[in-house]
Amino acid sequence: MDYRTAGVDIEAGNEVVRRVKRLLRGRTQRPEVVGGIGDFAGGFRWDKPGVLLAGADGVGTKILLAQALHRYDTIGIDLVAMNVNDVLASGGEPLFFLDYLAVGRVDPDRLESVLAGVVAGCEEAGCALLGGETAEMPDVYGPEGMDLAGFAVGRNVWVRPRAPEPGDLVIGLASSGYHANGFSLIRAIVQAARLDLGAVYPESGEQEPLGVVLLRPTKIYVRTVQPLLAGGQVVGMAHITGGGLEENLPRALPDGLGLELDPQAWSVPQLMRWMQRLGEVSDAEMRRTFNLGIGFALLVPREAAASVLQSVQASGCAAWTIGRVVAERGVHWR
Amino acid sequence: MDYRTAGVDIEAGNEVVRRVKRLLRGRTQRPEVVGGIGDFAGGFRWDKPGVLLAGADGVGTKILLAQALHRYDTIGIDLVAMNVNDVLASGGEPLFFLDYLAVGRVDPDRLESVLAGVVAGCEEAGCALLGGETAEMPDVYGPEGMDLAGFAVGRNVWVRPRAPEPGDLVIGLASSGYHANGFSLIRAIVQAARLDLGAVYPESGEQEPLGVVLLRPTKIYVRTVQPLLAGGQVVGMAHITGGGLEENLPRALPDGLGLELDPQAWSVPQLMRWMQRLGEVSDAEMRRTFNLGIGFALLVPREAAASVLQSVQASGCAAWTIGRVVAERGVHWR
Repeated sequence: MDYRTAGVDIEAGNEVVRRVKRLLRGRTQRPEVVGGIGDFAGGFRWDKPGVLLAGADGVGTKILLAQALHRYDTIGIDLVAMNVNDVLASGGEPLFFLDYLAVGRVDPDRLESVLAGVVAGCEEAGCALLGGETAEMPDVYGPEGMDLAGFAVGRNVWVRPRAPEPGDLVIGLASSGYHANGFSLIRAIVQAARLDLGAVYPESGEQEPLGVVLLRPTKIYVRTVQPLLAGGQVVGMAHITGGGLEENLPRALPDGLGLELDPQAWSVPQLMRWMQRLGEVSDAEMRRTFNLGIGFALLVPREAAASVLQSVQASGCAAWTIGRVVAERGVHWR
Repeated sequence: MDYRTAGVDIEAGNEVVRRVKRLLRGRTQRPEVVGGIGDFAGGFRWDKPGVLLAGADGVGTKILLAQALHRYDTIGIDLVAMNVNDVLASGGEPLFFLDYLAVGRVDPDRLESVLAGVVAGCEEAGCALLGGETAEMPDVYGPEGMDLAGFAVGRNVWVRPRAPEPGDLVIGLASSGYHANGFSLIRAIVQAARLDLGAVYPESGEQEPLGVVLLRPTKIYVRTVQPLLAGGQVVGMAHITGGGLEENLPRALPDGLGLELDPQAWSVPQLMRWMQRLGEVSDAEMRRTFNLGIGFALLVPREAAASVLQSVQASGCAAWTIGRVVAERGVHWR
């Protein structure tokens, strides 16, 4: 018996390492990177005292949608986004990223697609791809199965003038769609309503096939938000991930405070409303599962709101004042 | 429809977060930790300029053995070990660790077992558990399925006097068994030879049931190796993981050099020899798949060997001089 017969192809794994190296050649890695892909650990020179911020996340069952569509070129962007947006929400400039790609069978072409997305995401976020692991686990994932996890480290650059207080405003930054959360429910709706991922549904407000629309990568907010962090205008931040607006916005608040949101202040994407109707999903469930069109939120003092809103919009990201901090705990929909 | 019907139980996920917090209460986290579990990202105060070292790894299909035995209390130690040993092999003192636990169904008791192992591993390695993610993905893993990934960050403390040269000696540090590599082949042998994981096989040289023996956690080498790194006696290091001695030892060498190993210098564990016979695995395949009883290796100048060996053994880790660096590429078995 040998390892290959047992389902593990070390040579294919080595080929993936070669492909990553090729993908990174000529790309702008950060100058702090020391050593190279293939070392036991990646090195990053760091001389600035301060606070490092680290997060770990995956893409959830959005990976199953990529598999169903045989399209792997953007799911790596989702992976980077889920992680760097978490680091950003804690006040961090992303410095470096590592990936864990677990597959049933190492298909170098498919993994190269995934990694091309990872590299593109890292470029967009301004962080280095410092390393990663490809694990071949046939009996866990089956021949076509896969899971992705990521890990980002940043440094705190947030000058936080004070904690959030009642009266502060909530600025919601537009999402690019569902991002990479809630896909177990999204997939259940697709199945129950017998939707065709290859079809265009004008009722959804989208001009592309449903599968393509659902697979759109998560927006990376680094370029939009990072320039604001040193200015002392942002008192709180939230990345809207699993748990939706309802669970993630309060994470930006001190204990005892809450938020009042004005659902008239922005439009929930037509795609989400359409799928809500098809799946007969309650408003409450939508609010605690999806981002509803708001992928990231900034809490700002009232007097700073106009300038922050302008800066966000000038970066190319749509944004709205969607609510305010109140003295009553929880999220209250006006 | 709702998210819970679609297979995702946010409340069970929140319960896992509460359990992690409880597990960490009263444990020694590093003093640099800022903030707490449940923030978007974990914070770590950094005031020593230098090089950060980061690695990502999983436990491979050893997780399937834990599942088969319904024993989850040590696999978290493996997870930390696989990562911190990689950081160590690059010269790093582990600073912090993050985990990604992907499951088909969030079972808080089972995940608490896994996390208890992670916490124990972090304590042994002297690093903080800075954060993590629990992902519930029913359609990826099935109700009982699971995968674990980890990420470790350290800082370089290795004073490397020079690169390895021909004549340097290889000191092999004892493994605790198979560690967490090659389990696809191990499981294939178990199956082909119809071995019973619950049985004691005296021929294996072990007095405990086979399943318990195979599940023994990967040794964490931090306490043994880290004290040597500042002394300027270590010129190279290797963590023996996937690819075995054959593929990992050369990673410690500059291009063009190789190693001569003396298989008489140490005893391959009887368990591994026994399973090799049962599975009719070739010597060559064993060497490129398993650690053969050597889980970590140090390359040292000849004149430093005795004192390094003594220091390693004094820490409680068995070790042997197993070979030397030669001018011919590759690994040569004398």
